[in-house]
Amino acid sequence: MATQRIIDFLATRRPDGPCLVVDLDVVADNFRAFERALPDSRIYYAIKANPAPEILRMLAKMGSSFDAASVAEVEMAMNAGAPASRISFGNTIKKERDIARAYQLGVRLFAVDCVEEVEKIARVAAGSRVFCRVLTDGAGAEWPLSRKFGCVPVMAVDVLRRAHALGLEAYGVSFHVGSQQTDLAAWDRALGDARQVFAALAEEGIVLRMVNLGGGFPTRYLRDVPAAEAYGQAIFDALRKHFGNAIPETIIEPGRGMVGNAGVIKSEVVLISKKADNDNVRWVFLDIGKFGGLAETMDEAIRYPLVTRHDGDATAPCVLAGPTCDSADVLYEKTPYPLPLSLTIGDEVLIEGTGAYTTTYSAVAFNGFEPLRSYVI
Amino acid sequence: MATQRIIDFLATRRPDGPCLVVDLDVVADNFRAFERALPDSRIYYAIKANPAPEILRMLAKMGSSFDAASVAEVEMAMNAGAPASRISFGNTIKKERDIARAYQLGVRLFAVDCVEEVEKIARVAAGSRVFCRVLTDGAGAEWPLSRKFGCVPVMAVDVLRRAHALGLEAYGVSFHVGSQQTDLAAWDRALGDARQVFAALAEEGIVLRMVNLGGGFPTRYLRDVPAAEAYGQAIFDALRKHFGNAIPETIIEPGRGMVGNAGVIKSEVVLISKKADNDNVRWVFLDIGKFGGLAETMDEAIRYPLVTRHDGDATAPCVLAGPTCDSADVLYEKTPYPLPLSLTIGDEVLIEGTGAYTTTYSAVAFNGFEPLRSYVI
Repeated sequence: MATQRIIDFLATRRPDGPCLVVDLDVVADNFRAFERALPDSRIYYAIKANPAPEILRMLAKMGSSFDAASVAEVEMAMNAGAPASRISFGNTIKKERDIARAYQLGVRLFAVDCVEEVEKIARVAAGSRVFCRVLTDGAGAEWPLSRKFGCVPVMAVDVLRRAHALGLEAYGVSFHVGSQQTDLAAWDRALGDARQVFAALAEEGIVLRMVNLGGGFPTRYLRDVPAAEAYGQAIFDALRKHFGNAIPETIIEPGRGMVGNAGVIKSEVVLISKKADNDNVRWVFLDIGKFGGLAETMDEAIRYPLVTRHDGDATAPCVLAGPTCDSADVLYEKTPYPLPLSLTIGDEVLIEGTGAYTTTYSAVAFNGFEPLRSYVI
Repeated sequence: MATQRIIDFLATRRPDGPCLVVDLDVVADNFRAFERALPDSRIYYAIKANPAPEILRMLAKMGSSFDAASVAEVEMAMNAGAPASRISFGNTIKKERDIARAYQLGVRLFAVDCVEEVEKIARVAAGSRVFCRVLTDGAGAEWPLSRKFGCVPVMAVDVLRRAHALGLEAYGVSFHVGSQQTDLAAWDRALGDARQVFAALAEEGIVLRMVNLGGGFPTRYLRDVPAAEAYGQAIFDALRKHFGNAIPETIIEPGRGMVGNAGVIKSEVVLISKKADNDNVRWVFLDIGKFGGLAETMDEAIRYPLVTRHDGDATAPCVLAGPTCDSADVLYEKTPYPLPLSLTIGDEVLIEGTGAYTTTYSAVAFNGFEPLRSYVI
């Protein structure tokens, strides 16, 4: 997944220190793949995955809409050329003054998951569209969702009824099947729940129009995953099954699926050592770790593919760790990582599939290390 | 622990958004308490705990030495007025070019835990002092140490022998008993290990002179912890027991113990909601979370005291979560936090004991939220 453009960039520029390089061509390919797979859905790119201005500008030009988690992200999308009408304020947890600010900027689409949030929006963003997030179980996802977002479907009915009563447009239902979701049946279960909410409100004369299918579209890490086309078909089948001929408008919010496989982090081996002479496991320390952009290795949830110039040589299991003085800054220890025995201090290690959720997770200055630099080419 | 000065500052300045306020008077008190408790130890403040220039300048003026985790931290200490002779490069994982840079700046004291690191130092920092970190088990610590740093004591003998052979000064042994260590016997066990290394090398004519006792001195969170004096006495007793009349020079590296209780984070309740009408547990969302500076709530390891204007009112258990769209951004869920039933959206929540390991852990821009601001008063 280190494209030739990325390899050439690193060979030519030879940047010092760890950095992320993102290939815009891959992002463009991903956008078109989503368009092909789900031709009737509008694509709202989840800015939080990677808000690099070059990525936002290209996607805006290609016609993408944007899912923003904060006012700052609304402004990033607008600065990249997206009109406010193409921006969804998708965070269910918003300060009232931030809702007001987004409304002033022209945003008219907001996520909610409780009556309290509906009331804020009614106060400062009159007439806006709201969609209510319902809880899903997240089974099958690599980066599991907690119960943090969403409410049970029966409560979503109350939330949207309240929105309607307060003069907002009760617009639809959203869910998120969990990040890196590889179980296609997860969409079927969630769409069944969404259908219940549509039906209950229709009985009261409130007609919902939209289902937000969320994100969760996996990027390719170590394992093969069903391609975007398979996702599209599975989702279409589930929509047909639950909504028959009255298929609602749909939105998707890919983040990782749009940029994850477009980026590669270049890092360097700082140290290789053992804890005791008779230890079988070597410790390999890189110049990037959990606080430098690889936060998603938390609990060893995501296992990135590593590329070295010694690939093909005999390997042995290694604990992989970051460069900070924090003992929690260990990437893979429970399941050690097989790395070439010929790997040495100073060698370059490419960490693939790191285009999403790396730069912005990076700590601002932990241990004095600067945040992860990024080049978008 | 929100001092009157902090309360007055917040009342007068009314900063918008979450922020950390650190009271320098408390830091000064802590420094003097360490001096009194361990009058024969040199204090190396662990810069990584909080590198605010005001803190470094005051401690430099008070005579503190500094433990740096990177070249950037070496430079921070020097910019604050500390001579290079008072700086230890305490990270065992260093690029050779960073060792060279620190040496050029005048640093002559380096941490190691393997022969490979000794060889780097011998190549680019001739004649420097090195101390070898030994592994400890970390039992009794709230933020447990992994095996990331240090080697077994028998290997430390090899490492320091190699340093001596390469013309470096084999200076001593370091250990770290684990952060927030409340078991005073942990120092006794570690000093016993250190003594073994001293004895083995003495037989070969290599005389070590220093024991680096590390950090781990707890700050006051929810529970009472033995005061600095008790730590001092326990450490002195263990030194006497293991080293008799030949007590070595000692160094301590307090970080959390120096600044943890000096800081308070001001945050705001963004939302209070339930996931279902019949749910017993309310969800309280703050405008700061795991990616905004409260990284040490990982696995609910550290439980900060919270102060609201409703304290004393009837409470009920709450899940406490941050404001980002990341489902992992939940602070306390396994053990819900009792908060006043009268707490409402918009209320201020003070998070105490947050002077250490907050600002620098903060993500650079996750979800578009700016890093944690800090005021040192």
